[in-house]
Amino acid sequence: MDSYVIQMNDSNSPPAVLDVHVSMSGRSSVPGKMKGRKARWSVKPSDMSNKTFNPIRAIVDSMKVKPNPVKTMISLSIGDPTVFGNLPTDPEVTQAMKDALDSGKYNGYAPSIGYLSSREEVASYYHCPEAPLEAKDVILTSGCSQAIELCLAVLANPGQNILIPRPGFSLYRTLAESMGIEVKLYNLLPEKSWEIDLKQLESLIDEKTACLIINNPSNPCGSVFKKSHLQKILAVAARHCVPILADEIYGDMVFSDCKYEPLATLSTNVPILSCGGLAKRWLVPGWRLGWILIHDRKDIFGNEIRDGLVKLSQRILGPCTIVQGALKSILRRTPQEFYHDALGFLKSNADLCYGALAAIPGLKPVRPSGAMYLMVGIEMEHFPEFENDVEFTERLVAEQSVHCLPATCFEYPNFFRVVITVPEVMMLEACSRIQEFCEQHYHSAEGSQEECDK
Amino acid sequence: MDSYVIQMNDSNSPPAVLDVHVSMSGRSSVPGKMKGRKARWSVKPSDMSNKTFNPIRAIVDSMKVKPNPVKTMISLSIGDPTVFGNLPTDPEVTQAMKDALDSGKYNGYAPSIGYLSSREEVASYYHCPEAPLEAKDVILTSGCSQAIELCLAVLANPGQNILIPRPGFSLYRTLAESMGIEVKLYNLLPEKSWEIDLKQLESLIDEKTACLIINNPSNPCGSVFKKSHLQKILAVAARHCVPILADEIYGDMVFSDCKYEPLATLSTNVPILSCGGLAKRWLVPGWRLGWILIHDRKDIFGNEIRDGLVKLSQRILGPCTIVQGALKSILRRTPQEFYHDALGFLKSNADLCYGALAAIPGLKPVRPSGAMYLMVGIEMEHFPEFENDVEFTERLVAEQSVHCLPATCFEYPNFFRVVITVPEVMMLEACSRIQEFCEQHYHSAEGSQEECDK
Repeated sequence: MDSYVIQMNDSNSPPAVLDVHVSMSGRSSVPGKMKGRKARWSVKPSDMSNKTFNPIRAIVDSMKVKPNPVKTMISLSIGDPTVFGNLPTDPEVTQAMKDALDSGKYNGYAPSIGYLSSREEVASYYHCPEAPLEAKDVILTSGCSQAIELCLAVLANPGQNILIPRPGFSLYRTLAESMGIEVKLYNLLPEKSWEIDLKQLESLIDEKTACLIINNPSNPCGSVFKKSHLQKILAVAARHCVPILADEIYGDMVFSDCKYEPLATLSTNVPILSCGGLAKRWLVPGWRLGWILIHDRKDIFGNEIRDGLVKLSQRILGPCTIVQGALKSILRRTPQEFYHDALGFLKSNADLCYGALAAIPGLKPVRPSGAMYLMVGIEMEHFPEFENDVEFTERLVAEQSVHCLPATCFEYPNFFRVVITVPEVMMLEACSRIQEFCEQHYHSAEGSQEECDK
Repeated sequence: MDSYVIQMNDSNSPPAVLDVHVSMSGRSSVPGKMKGRKARWSVKPSDMSNKTFNPIRAIVDSMKVKPNPVKTMISLSIGDPTVFGNLPTDPEVTQAMKDALDSGKYNGYAPSIGYLSSREEVASYYHCPEAPLEAKDVILTSGCSQAIELCLAVLANPGQNILIPRPGFSLYRTLAESMGIEVKLYNLLPEKSWEIDLKQLESLIDEKTACLIINNPSNPCGSVFKKSHLQKILAVAARHCVPILADEIYGDMVFSDCKYEPLATLSTNVPILSCGGLAKRWLVPGWRLGWILIHDRKDIFGNEIRDGLVKLSQRILGPCTIVQGALKSILRRTPQEFYHDALGFLKSNADLCYGALAAIPGLKPVRPSGAMYLMVGIEMEHFPEFENDVEFTERLVAEQSVHCLPATCFEYPNFFRVVITVPEVMMLEACSRIQEFCEQHYHSAEGSQEECDK
């Protein structure tokens, strides 16, 4: 879901922002206005665009990133599993697209919420007795980003607030603030495998709270909530009558030793908009095929929210029709081995990375259970040269040509995020360089018991 | 660009809205609020979704459309050239998509404004000495709808206004009002081949005018502005320092006897955002590949508007990467005969339709010069049975199973719009049924000179 980061392994893809700057010379300097009509040119960007702020871009762009020229760059920063070529999508997925092209049936406009037949396929794929779904409960979107955008746009007015996780995916804040919606941060607890601090969460809810965003499995944590924890989250929502936006884009992407529970399967009364898509599990994030699953068995959203979503979908229409046309085959024909192999690889890389980093003095990785990420705490007191995680990761690039995202990007300082989709040999090399880096900069904190702590 | 209309020729695609209604029973009835926290469920759609209004949907949904069961339905209502199968895209276009799939290079995230290489291709395709373009001047979007949305979102604040054509494409109003932007309607003059009433246009401009939308070639009119008229429009914009959003999605789609002038080629000082895409000319509207071309040779938009567009593009990211990857081949390899043949067909159908309808007492078609539409005036005084164009077209469906959009959908009552992409035999049959319908309902207006008028 985070496409914001410079793909430093791919020199053909320069950053999106940097190449659009033009010279300031010749710009009309002073905006002037006359009563009635404009006397001179003065075109300013809207408040909305000024309020659209991408923290990852801001932080990464401000980093003085010059890799060590004698070491090849290893980027562990971008949540795009396709970057390294080691995780291709399944041939059935590609074939489904070709078949959709050849049919000639999917070139025209679809309904703005997607073809009925495609929505039926998604509904039937995710239907289960505890959380039944029909086509009417599915809205197809241009990626999971648009799914989240539509959900926020229909649920919240400017001046209301939403609750989002810290650490959490930055898009929630970016979208909310662009729409004038306030965000309140609830804490995830690293010592409890990133479970939610439920008391603190509950304390944030007020009558202006429009929804609660639950991201499970988590980006950036790679954590997967247990059933009992999800039930407690639902109890909070039910107690305060706050609907849930469940960002489940990493749904089913959990390692073999734990179980993924779609949030909606655990509640009969809390209305839930679950957002997902093809991006991560099918390894095609660029295709921009997302969806909203509307779970509303007590008819609390009712027609109004459903109609609101439909109306909002008509503003720019939905996803590419070829991908919609391919959806049936993608969902039905992708072999189980594909999912199994991808998760096996991620679990193996996660274990490898966790093991290597846990052995490094000064670092405290948190073991992930799913998704594609691992968060690593930095015991900053042992790295007095660096002011914070941003400087730590900046220097890691400069000295070791390893790029990890500082967790300040996720509003969680003194951690960094590692993407575990890289080939094993790169993962090992990166860990070894991180080790060298940490050893070179590690200082025993005076009076501390760092030897005992490790 | 208008995907909103029920595809009545395609019984497999029911309308987007109708199938999402659910029972109202069980809905919590009275919204109740307590100080601090909510006491019961009350989830209401946002003001934005309430303000998102699609006039075509509203009008078409309210029409009591029951086709005559003994006549097969002919829909001339939807601006989708792919509906009838007679206008397939070129095989090179499909092949380009397959090649992009096979390359495996276009599955990951692209920059939110599109791949640099794809933007280079669009820039070079539309570059000309009078309006030079580089990759930095191109932003790829999820269809032309998103292009228009981003342009409005960056240029206008709530409370400002934009000027839009009457008759005109309904999306401008839908988008603007959803964002709290006021619309002011400038008039197109049917007696002048739908040229703009420039004086009236100019009278609408005030200091809150954020931009002027020029749609050329026009939906719904099928008109193409002459160079001299475009220059006069630019003079108005320059005089009042109002930037232009040029909706040029039908660019280059003009008949052999007239010339299309991209607006930006005629001005060196008016800043122009030109919106376009693959939808119409390449006959793949469902693929959702649009673009914004930034023309700003006097640096009036400057960095700020460009950066604003980039920031807004990061909210939901851009178009499907497979289509982006295919763009180079699509733009370079589509043979000239493809464009030539499509336009030849449209011109022939336009002539045929114009000729047939012009001969019908009570109708006043306006001859189109491009795009895919033809507007037909209804001399309502000769059809006293019908209150307006909505009732006229409704009855046309009921009696003749021919569906045309009442131009009330385009804020222009007493006209209807005909889509001219249908196969010739259907076009002829539709015209013949319209003739029968008009003959059956035509009344000589008392004291009028309708025989002389014709």
